[in-house]
Amino acid sequence: MNSPSPELPELLASIRSHADLMEIPESELPRLAEEIRNTLIHSLSLTGGHLGPNLGVVELSIALHRVFETPRDKIIFDVSHQAYVHKMLTGRAPLIHTIRQHGGLSGFAKMSESPHDSYGAGHAGTALSAALGMCAARDLKGEDYHVVAVAGDAAFTCGTTLEALNNISQTTKRYITILNDNEWAIDKNVGALAKYFNSLQTSETFSWLRDKTASFIEKLGGTQARDFAFKLEGTTKNLIFPSLLFNKFGLRYFGPLDGHDIPTLIRTLAYIKDLNEPVILHVVTQKGKGYQPALDNPTKFHGLGSYCVRDGETQAAPTPTFSHIFGSTLVEMAREDESITAITAAMASGTKLDLFKEAFPKRYFDVGIAEEHGALFACGLAAEGMKPYIAIYSTFMQRCIDMIQHDAALQKLPVRFCMDRAGLSPDDGPTHHGLFDIAMIRSIPNIVFMQPKDEAEFVHMLRTMNHYQNGPTVIRYPRGCGAGTPVPAKAEILPIGKAEVLQAGQDVTLVSLGTMIGIARETASLLEVRGYTVTLINARFIKPLDDECIRRHAARSRVVCTFEDHSISGGFNSAVLESLETGDVKTPVEAIAWPDQFIEHGSESILRKKYGLTAEAALQKIIPHLNS
Amino acid sequence: MNSPSPELPELLASIRSHADLMEIPESELPRLAEEIRNTLIHSLSLTGGHLGPNLGVVELSIALHRVFETPRDKIIFDVSHQAYVHKMLTGRAPLIHTIRQHGGLSGFAKMSESPHDSYGAGHAGTALSAALGMCAARDLKGEDYHVVAVAGDAAFTCGTTLEALNNISQTTKRYITILNDNEWAIDKNVGALAKYFNSLQTSETFSWLRDKTASFIEKLGGTQARDFAFKLEGTTKNLIFPSLLFNKFGLRYFGPLDGHDIPTLIRTLAYIKDLNEPVILHVVTQKGKGYQPALDNPTKFHGLGSYCVRDGETQAAPTPTFSHIFGSTLVEMAREDESITAITAAMASGTKLDLFKEAFPKRYFDVGIAEEHGALFACGLAAEGMKPYIAIYSTFMQRCIDMIQHDAALQKLPVRFCMDRAGLSPDDGPTHHGLFDIAMIRSIPNIVFMQPKDEAEFVHMLRTMNHYQNGPTVIRYPRGCGAGTPVPAKAEILPIGKAEVLQAGQDVTLVSLGTMIGIARETASLLEVRGYTVTLINARFIKPLDDECIRRHAARSRVVCTFEDHSISGGFNSAVLESLETGDVKTPVEAIAWPDQFIEHGSESILRKKYGLTAEAALQKIIPHLNS
Repeated sequence: MNSPSPELPELLASIRSHADLMEIPESELPRLAEEIRNTLIHSLSLTGGHLGPNLGVVELSIALHRVFETPRDKIIFDVSHQAYVHKMLTGRAPLIHTIRQHGGLSGFAKMSESPHDSYGAGHAGTALSAALGMCAARDLKGEDYHVVAVAGDAAFTCGTTLEALNNISQTTKRYITILNDNEWAIDKNVGALAKYFNSLQTSETFSWLRDKTASFIEKLGGTQARDFAFKLEGTTKNLIFPSLLFNKFGLRYFGPLDGHDIPTLIRTLAYIKDLNEPVILHVVTQKGKGYQPALDNPTKFHGLGSYCVRDGETQAAPTPTFSHIFGSTLVEMAREDESITAITAAMASGTKLDLFKEAFPKRYFDVGIAEEHGALFACGLAAEGMKPYIAIYSTFMQRCIDMIQHDAALQKLPVRFCMDRAGLSPDDGPTHHGLFDIAMIRSIPNIVFMQPKDEAEFVHMLRTMNHYQNGPTVIRYPRGCGAGTPVPAKAEILPIGKAEVLQAGQDVTLVSLGTMIGIARETASLLEVRGYTVTLINARFIKPLDDECIRRHAARSRVVCTFEDHSISGGFNSAVLESLETGDVKTPVEAIAWPDQFIEHGSESILRKKYGLTAEAALQKIIPHLNS
Repeated sequence: MNSPSPELPELLASIRSHADLMEIPESELPRLAEEIRNTLIHSLSLTGGHLGPNLGVVELSIALHRVFETPRDKIIFDVSHQAYVHKMLTGRAPLIHTIRQHGGLSGFAKMSESPHDSYGAGHAGTALSAALGMCAARDLKGEDYHVVAVAGDAAFTCGTTLEALNNISQTTKRYITILNDNEWAIDKNVGALAKYFNSLQTSETFSWLRDKTASFIEKLGGTQARDFAFKLEGTTKNLIFPSLLFNKFGLRYFGPLDGHDIPTLIRTLAYIKDLNEPVILHVVTQKGKGYQPALDNPTKFHGLGSYCVRDGETQAAPTPTFSHIFGSTLVEMAREDESITAITAAMASGTKLDLFKEAFPKRYFDVGIAEEHGALFACGLAAEGMKPYIAIYSTFMQRCIDMIQHDAALQKLPVRFCMDRAGLSPDDGPTHHGLFDIAMIRSIPNIVFMQPKDEAEFVHMLRTMNHYQNGPTVIRYPRGCGAGTPVPAKAEILPIGKAEVLQAGQDVTLVSLGTMIGIARETASLLEVRGYTVTLINARFIKPLDDECIRRHAARSRVVCTFEDHSISGGFNSAVLESLETGDVKTPVEAIAWPDQFIEHGSESILRKKYGLTAEAALQKIIPHLNS
């Protein structure tokens, strides 16, 4: 944040406002696109970020800001990790080097960051619905600004987008959706709709159409745009599926357009902006456009850390990540257990289920960005005797809380919910931190809910999940690497609901959940050098909690301190308080946890220090109880 | 449950198994349908239940059980309140008089009740996904049973159904969906899809087609069914929209059929059951078929209490329900405040937003069974300065937890979430009880979360919500009527986060949430006659909790007891424990709440007594602390 802004290229540097952008001659806009692309490639090589998606929407973003004027007009980006170019065009180019850094720009659209960000996001499938709400508000207020939702084809695998589609035509007459079709969510898209969208890109029809479009544009100008648009619409309608689909939903369909052809985009947007009916414009873009390493490896360059600009190389993780251990352990277990199946919601590489896909393609299911369907699909598999493992990031698991409760837990179906990225997701920030899952899940009856202290225990827990058949199990594990504990050759089945006492003492009882064991151990050491004896419990199970063990140790201590990578409200600490109260144990309890607020983006070390998730902070909370 | 089974009519009484059903000559099946209908109309007039939906599927259920053999074949009913006929055909007719009674049959399909119930439900939009999971399991196991999902047209407004549709063709080749098209969810369906489905029912095309179908059937038998089916398919394909839509999703479409024509249904099902491709069969049925009062008032007869068989009359509630107060108060406030808008997810009558619809049709939005889209749509409205009120039952609000957190709370958008049916939903049982919402919502930062003690305070709280603009507000209120407290002429704005101290004492502090105030007051009286002085706090706010007030009174008492209509785990009691621990108050805390398990269906008084939500139970928990 405090590093000086690198010098920006000429055209980009000139843009401080919409008026500045309008001053650039249209013929110069491809040069602006080039400047933006170079700036992105170089700047993100240092900070990391969502390079591929942003390289894909450079021309589209320029055209949108040329035709629409934010903040009066509203542009709502779905997921919004593709909003970097939008940020650069709305006064934030000088800050692009701070993106995803603590105190710097967010990697997503964010209402509090700029009035040009009319709606924030981080989870997919929200843009069409939010935009429709904005249209309804505009209509009721009698105003006339434009609302444009920009969503990738992957968003159309998500139920909320389809729910929104079903509601548009009865709600407003002025609504613009841009379908940004690039074949990719984070991984290659799945499902019947994606198949149809994507068939366009390779079809001769589309090539023909693209050429046709270009020649139309060359010939036609200003007032003739209307004819052009009609022709374009007519040409595609009888050829290609999407027009039929969207027409049936009451949207007028235009496209597909080459999403990198600025003049065509501008002409078409200018035409459709004045229509008095809901419209969908289908543009085809190339994720990673203009940077060969990103084109060669779209999954890697969807979002990544720092890389070498020349060849796109990144540093490998020093030890296997929890995700990697999950993927490889599941593959190993599945060799012996034919009933194991794996489900991902468009996160094959992030969750490392790509390993499973390679080993057991028939037992692997990518359902698209459809967590709700994925959880229900898993329930169906479990009802018929399979052992489904559904791997979803903690923050996205919020989408299927209803299914975990109403379908899996109530019916005692042994679905395995594997929650990756539980705890802090540092640079992504509040839309991606997994700091609420315990509160949302631990009150659900019949659930076994656990978190491993290290890589070795993770493997034991996965084996335990596989063995447990009496109902759903949930495991939460953090993003990235652990301390590097070697993975055992033979995994054990852990007793359900039993904590692990790592050491026993008299003065203080530390109850640690998951990889917070590192800070808890440090805290124990700090206490021990001060002459206190410490009990250190690795909780293992959030539910059922080992009441007996925790109460017994707590009762004989002068103070208890819990450690968790979760919000203080309704989390693990709260479970311990309930247990001690029920057990009539009156020892004071301190907590190391995230405060009851949304946590901004930033590095883990900065944020942990700022919010007191450190051994030093724990010591300061514990010591007063020992002195009294 | 213990009342003797009323005598069943002849054919129905003969059915104990699939074989028994198959023994009945096909020509006698209409008589069986008649018997079932009469039994339903008379039996439910005493117990209450989902009469309309079940009258609509009598013939369809008979045809399904004639062609498929459960439990080998799986029939999955969406929502499953239309599974009564299925229950009667699978050995449970003698128990139909116990439906929704404590210890009797569930009003929904329930895996633990019968092996013929292959999947339970209560929330809409789950059947297609769960059925697809079952198909995947069957295919992997190399088995060959049939899986049939039965879903109403309303389920197609729900994102999960659409997500499932998008995944079918890539997952299995053998999948049967029955689209039971009756125009109604609980209220009249909305959205573009419903519009298309429903246009069939009134179109001349459909009449022609229905006649055509009947004559085909008369002429064709056994082996010629294939030709018939092909013709039927071909005839509709070019005429009507749904075939195109579903074909694009990779499903072969058949229909629409008259859903009350048993021979046609049987022929068609017998044909499609052997197809090696996913199939959707569109049947048109009449909700309430065969009972005039239900046909005259489909919304009322969707689900209701006891009624008079002759004219369908029911007893009016003695005092206005909380839902009614919500609807009428919102209408009143909206007269003065033009920015108020109202959103329902297919629950206009249940939430009494039908009053708002009538008064302000332009500011009213029914989004279909689409809680996620509804919440996002509300966020869009709020982002543009409107005041959206979204009314959803507590148990369905679980569907949009992600949106409450990620969209409303993180962005501090003042959306008003109005959670009807919070607490017990007695006769419906575990799929409908609202006993988990506090746990799921109170950990979300920036939320104001409240519950009124009576009807008067409810009105004050709605006014308070309307005034509060700093972020989302959530209010939970119970099903049915309160004690009948008169509604005040002028509503007050309550101070955010301030509890109400109803009386102050020394020995005991009772902290009550919502209408549990009745039991708390009784408890106070029981304590007072024993000579103890009691502080009685009406918490009003779950978040922000009035820490100062609760801690101050708790600190000087010998025992605290909390009262809530919610699960003990992670609920209001847990919030109080957190507060007291943080405030270093060591007074013992007892709790009156539902236990950490799923609660079965039954009357409120039976269940409260069984699980100890009574003043007597509170007294038993409190007294030991006073004697020591």
